[in-house]
Amino acid sequence: MAQEIESLAERLATLMQRGLVEEAMNLIASTHPADQADVFTNLQSELRPTFFALLSAEGQAELIEYLDEEDRRELVKEIPRDSLARVLDKTANDVAADILRELPPSETARLLSTMASAADVTPLLDHADETAGGLMTRSFVPLHQEMTVQEAINYLRLRRPWAEEAYYLYVLDNLNRLEGVVNLRSLITVPPDTRIAQIMSPDVIAISADADQEEAARLIQRYRLRALPVVDEDRHLLGVTTVDDLMEVAEEEATEDMQRMVGLPGDESFDSPLMVSARRRISWLLVNLPTAFIAAAMVNFFEGTIARAAVLAVFMPIIAGQGGNAGVQTLTLVVRGLALREVELKDVRPILTRELAIALMKGITLGLIVGFSAWAWKHNVALGLIAGTAMLANMMVAGLVGTLVPIVLRWLRLDPAIASGIFVTAFTDMLGFLMFLGLATIFLSQIT
Amino acid sequence: MAQEIESLAERLATLMQRGLVEEAMNLIASTHPADQADVFTNLQSELRPTFFALLSAEGQAELIEYLDEEDRRELVKEIPRDSLARVLDKTANDVAADILRELPPSETARLLSTMASAADVTPLLDHADETAGGLMTRSFVPLHQEMTVQEAINYLRLRRPWAEEAYYLYVLDNLNRLEGVVNLRSLITVPPDTRIAQIMSPDVIAISADADQEEAARLIQRYRLRALPVVDEDRHLLGVTTVDDLMEVAEEEATEDMQRMVGLPGDESFDSPLMVSARRRISWLLVNLPTAFIAAAMVNFFEGTIARAAVLAVFMPIIAGQGGNAGVQTLTLVVRGLALREVELKDVRPILTRELAIALMKGITLGLIVGFSAWAWKHNVALGLIAGTAMLANMMVAGLVGTLVPIVLRWLRLDPAIASGIFVTAFTDMLGFLMFLGLATIFLSQIT
Repeated sequence: MAQEIESLAERLATLMQRGLVEEAMNLIASTHPADQADVFTNLQSELRPTFFALLSAEGQAELIEYLDEEDRRELVKEIPRDSLARVLDKTANDVAADILRELPPSETARLLSTMASAADVTPLLDHADETAGGLMTRSFVPLHQEMTVQEAINYLRLRRPWAEEAYYLYVLDNLNRLEGVVNLRSLITVPPDTRIAQIMSPDVIAISADADQEEAARLIQRYRLRALPVVDEDRHLLGVTTVDDLMEVAEEEATEDMQRMVGLPGDESFDSPLMVSARRRISWLLVNLPTAFIAAAMVNFFEGTIARAAVLAVFMPIIAGQGGNAGVQTLTLVVRGLALREVELKDVRPILTRELAIALMKGITLGLIVGFSAWAWKHNVALGLIAGTAMLANMMVAGLVGTLVPIVLRWLRLDPAIASGIFVTAFTDMLGFLMFLGLATIFLSQIT
Repeated sequence: MAQEIESLAERLATLMQRGLVEEAMNLIASTHPADQADVFTNLQSELRPTFFALLSAEGQAELIEYLDEEDRRELVKEIPRDSLARVLDKTANDVAADILRELPPSETARLLSTMASAADVTPLLDHADETAGGLMTRSFVPLHQEMTVQEAINYLRLRRPWAEEAYYLYVLDNLNRLEGVVNLRSLITVPPDTRIAQIMSPDVIAISADADQEEAARLIQRYRLRALPVVDEDRHLLGVTTVDDLMEVAEEEATEDMQRMVGLPGDESFDSPLMVSARRRISWLLVNLPTAFIAAAMVNFFEGTIARAAVLAVFMPIIAGQGGNAGVQTLTLVVRGLALREVELKDVRPILTRELAIALMKGITLGLIVGFSAWAWKHNVALGLIAGTAMLANMMVAGLVGTLVPIVLRWLRLDPAIASGIFVTAFTDMLGFLMFLGLATIFLSQIT
């Protein structure tokens, strides 16, 4: 795929540089807009405006819909303001609103004053980007209960250009409140004189405009919908979000979780500017540094013990490291369970019980292995007993903090993924050292 | 949500235990099948067969479609074989095939012999569960180029019960090869005597039946489709996969990646049997144990140095730990980038350059902080220089192995997520200790 895109971009660049406009246009026309967007990204930036100019207004709108945010922002800067209004008229409402939201208010106002779709786009500007309202479009087809199926079909024919998303048709009352939903398919499969009231389903699953986009993704997935109507508190229909927008949301949220657990911002990619990436990642490591120094201070406290039995330093990484690995296993399960709504705050007790039971089994197994290994390697029974006991105890710490850290973060209404990996390994490091070196200090005469 | 489900399950259990069948049936009937599935999971296992018996055959089929795999498997065991055939007839083909695939072959054959949908389900049995073929259903409506729109609509009315997924209509030639696609909406919005050939789009994006389900999810997301036709090597239409099935795939794959990075099996949940979970997680820690012992052996090699300068043990966790954190940051970005196809094997060089540049900045910053802290804390310039240099060097190791480990795994055609967290921290531990203690041994006289 990537290779085809690159060769396409090269051929296109050659055509454009040679001024072979018609050939270039033909090549673009035979390419899906999703691929056009990738070709666009692959072009040198000085060729991009030429590429864009070769598209029809519809084609330009489609390209804009498929571009990622960064490229879109760059491109919008280059488009003359009068053609921008025309392109935004053809662009999906939600994308047009995303673009307008990022422009200075005066410019937005000027653009809206010349846009035919201003009435549809303007209400969307009030909703934040990551809410259900920020994802919706106004391209829905409203029906009324008293209409016949034939009237509905005629109305649909009339509204044709705006019916892009008409998989479901929403039935509204005279105040535009959502009363029911009709499947497009059922319009075709019933006699034309049937009333809409007879074929509509009155139980419409809808979402409030200010709900998080993740909640919208959850609903659409749970109830296997193609589209989800967005309503205000009085159930007035404000717009519709569709499954294709929300599919990206599910993936974005998963990426965000993974990144945040290791102290990345959540939307970091290899396209992010180098200095921005470096600064964010370094600041994260700096946040983590105090916890590392606390672990170091713990070791420092036992420096005298280590000076008399340097062999202890050999087993420190095993006890801390295995504890950290075990803690991160539990953590990952709990963070992901919270994100997918499989785990809730009230489930703390059964989950903690379960994780501690598993931790005990982990601890006994690894404690025995590490203990016997230490005994066999260093011919020292006491060292084996101490290392094995500390390993067992640190596994219990791992199960405990791996479960509690994300749950406490959620309880504090913070993102359970944020920083949690660091907290958990900080605990397993500190407590692992404390228990191992503490035991060793007590039984120092047996080791040396 | 979870609370509503629980109270619903309780009310239903009471009704069933009191034998109030009609009330129970009314309560179930007013519940969405997705919620029914959750209620079912919340019921004590002895009440589940009663609940199931209260549903119509269609209701039973819908419930089965919404249950998760584990509950579905349990339930199927309880259903008498003659009613199972009737339920599977009503169930989506792909789910029916999933269920039949898990039964003994003789039982599958017996069930299929009495199923009306056997002709649709049988071909699906040949496809593995996690391929595009394993996700498809046969419920598509085939059209021909010479049909008029009116004929197509009549045909659709005729096929009504099977047209569940008819958002796109596929145009086939006489050998059932895919020639084009028609949007359901366009049937309504053109004159009835238009030929299908005139409104079909000949560029159909399709997927091969043996392609991975992740690839299907990628295509449906990239091209923003509602459904994706599945074809064999000669482009015969075999079935259709839909966006709702694939939305779950995207989320499953993300969960799998997250789990595998920390040594979980990929489909672990809090519902997995305790002993199975414990065994899997322990075996993972055991796999990791040798790497921990190698790091320990590295420290052991320098035991003499530590015996003379126990202060070194204090800084070991900082240098190894921060290196591990930095490595896992890079790793997460690369693993996720590979999964989302944003990174490919040929991108090794730019990504490695970028990550090493960031690693250098991380290294300089943290090296200076750790170095000066060590100097200030222990009043020892040499110790500060050694700790700072080792910190810098370990950051470079982290950037290198964080990038290369997943890329080498992908190059070996393994899952880049598997075990990668362990490998990366094993490297940062081992090389961190080697560099820090090695330098300390060389300059030992300056430290003590």
